[in-house]
Amino acid sequence: MSAVQDLPTPALVVDTAAFEHNLAAMAAALPGDRCRPHVKAHKTTALARAQATRGHRTFTCATPREMEGMANAGLGDDLLLANEVVDPDRLRRLAALDARVTIAVDSEATIDAAARAGLREVVIDVFVGMPRCGCRAEEAGRLADAARARGLVVRGVMGYEGHVVGVHDRATRVEQTEAAMLQLLDAHADVGGELVSGGGTGTFDINTWVTEIQAGSYALMDTAYGHLDLPFELALSIVATVISVSESWAVADCGLKALGMDHGDPTVIGHTVWYCSDEHVTFGPETPVAVGDRVRVLPAHIDPTVAYHERMHLATDDDVVDTWEIDLRGW
Amino acid sequence: MSAVQDLPTPALVVDTAAFEHNLAAMAAALPGDRCRPHVKAHKTTALARAQATRGHRTFTCATPREMEGMANAGLGDDLLLANEVVDPDRLRRLAALDARVTIAVDSEATIDAAARAGLREVVIDVFVGMPRCGCRAEEAGRLADAARARGLVVRGVMGYEGHVVGVHDRATRVEQTEAAMLQLLDAHADVGGELVSGGGTGTFDINTWVTEIQAGSYALMDTAYGHLDLPFELALSIVATVISVSESWAVADCGLKALGMDHGDPTVIGHTVWYCSDEHVTFGPETPVAVGDRVRVLPAHIDPTVAYHERMHLATDDDVVDTWEIDLRGW
Repeated sequence: MSAVQDLPTPALVVDTAAFEHNLAAMAAALPGDRCRPHVKAHKTTALARAQATRGHRTFTCATPREMEGMANAGLGDDLLLANEVVDPDRLRRLAALDARVTIAVDSEATIDAAARAGLREVVIDVFVGMPRCGCRAEEAGRLADAARARGLVVRGVMGYEGHVVGVHDRATRVEQTEAAMLQLLDAHADVGGELVSGGGTGTFDINTWVTEIQAGSYALMDTAYGHLDLPFELALSIVATVISVSESWAVADCGLKALGMDHGDPTVIGHTVWYCSDEHVTFGPETPVAVGDRVRVLPAHIDPTVAYHERMHLATDDDVVDTWEIDLRGW
Repeated sequence: MSAVQDLPTPALVVDTAAFEHNLAAMAAALPGDRCRPHVKAHKTTALARAQATRGHRTFTCATPREMEGMANAGLGDDLLLANEVVDPDRLRRLAALDARVTIAVDSEATIDAAARAGLREVVIDVFVGMPRCGCRAEEAGRLADAARARGLVVRGVMGYEGHVVGVHDRATRVEQTEAAMLQLLDAHADVGGELVSGGGTGTFDINTWVTEIQAGSYALMDTAYGHLDLPFELALSIVATVISVSESWAVADCGLKALGMDHGDPTVIGHTVWYCSDEHVTFGPETPVAVGDRVRVLPAHIDPTVAYHERMHLATDDDVVDTWEIDLRGW
């Protein structure tokens, strides 16, 4: 068994206590199929298997490769690709998987692509306030009819309130989630089917209108979600090595190629971040540091951070107890 | 031969005409060892081989893995790790490479680590204005003596004017480069050795004080450097597929997991970017687009963009003429 202290850096490290707490908290709040964990946040079949052990056997994916990897890992009981794809080759590969595959559609073109590829099940993706994919609620019934006319089974609707999940004030989050979900329920009234899928880590206990929550970040968390009033703990950090120290600042080997930067700078625990460059984080030490010291870096946004790394290490205190390949990267 | 139109997306595509122009322009301006191309920008040994074909046989790296990959690809004539490393295992592996390996040091600790690992050659890394690695110029001579006392060959100095390379006004860039390089020359006077290494794409023709320029971005370019008055063309874009279209916006499958975001949003050619999320760019179409259409996305920062991708495709017009593995990713 190796020690966190000896890992080559930068190294993604998962604190097992916080991780187990997060999985248990979600499994208690949304048992079984009430949570359809989103694998895009961690891209790791071993982590998905831990979620399955907690009772969640349905999963959400963002890319065809995530779907294929989950199916090939034996986690294909019920996989939802919560994204639109029109690439015929990829869609045919999805149709050929030994898994239950459902894909989001939001237009005649995506329905046509799914039907041509031999896919069998879809959900109608509905716009509920965030300008991204999704048809307007009033078009959902027509698209469901069009899909059924092409021989597809329409399992229901999905709509992601991505504009709400990060809202700090809980009362506002509740209000905006309701407004979004009433649109989704309108669509569902026209579409039918057993699934009303939506939500995320930020609305997992607020969004009571859906039949299932697509939460991803809850398992590992990040500083952006950490600012909300959620019962999940920061389980993931990046261990970095101090490589240079001068009078006013120090530098560790965790740069912006090891971090998603769209939510801004990371946090270096116990110190003050100045800025990141490709391979470095420059920080103001709040206590003296020396070359060779280790520091802990907390990413602002977990999804694009994990996507840069090849593996994550599970650590109990300073002992590395397992290492998981991040095997769902790419498209 | 496949067509760009048929590539699975998001796909990194290099325009061969622009790429060849960039390589030729640099080889003409800074022939042979006057340019020490930095591989961190492209992380691709096949691309480095194209640079070597143009006469550049010395290379700059940012990570041990880049060093190992370059050596194993037969491009190890003279590799400079322009970064501080104290990991004993990695340093020993560098010392064992069948390559000429030089590493940057900026402290007693990094000198000690290099000497213990059996490395033979170093440069003294000098702070020239950007708060990152590098000793103060007045300490450089003492560190060089310390390194020589440990049996290391000190090949000279390096100092990166990273705070200057992106300055828009050329006169200011010239003035600030001179101020930075005068510090480096002060250090060199105390250190000795044949190398005075520095510079980047933004100062390749301004920084006449160094013996070699560590330019990386020039080969492929990005929109940040594209705003400067440089003779290099944007050679790299990401081909993405439109997957959803609504009244006011459209969505393509090139999100922030396919883009470095630290320099801000990418550009979608011919349209107006609204924002990026993990797997999507939402944009306002300036001309009508339909699901299945292809769009071209220009990254704001090339280095962290390339680091997300597994391969880049070389295209002459719409024909894919070669595909290169991005084989130097990770650490």
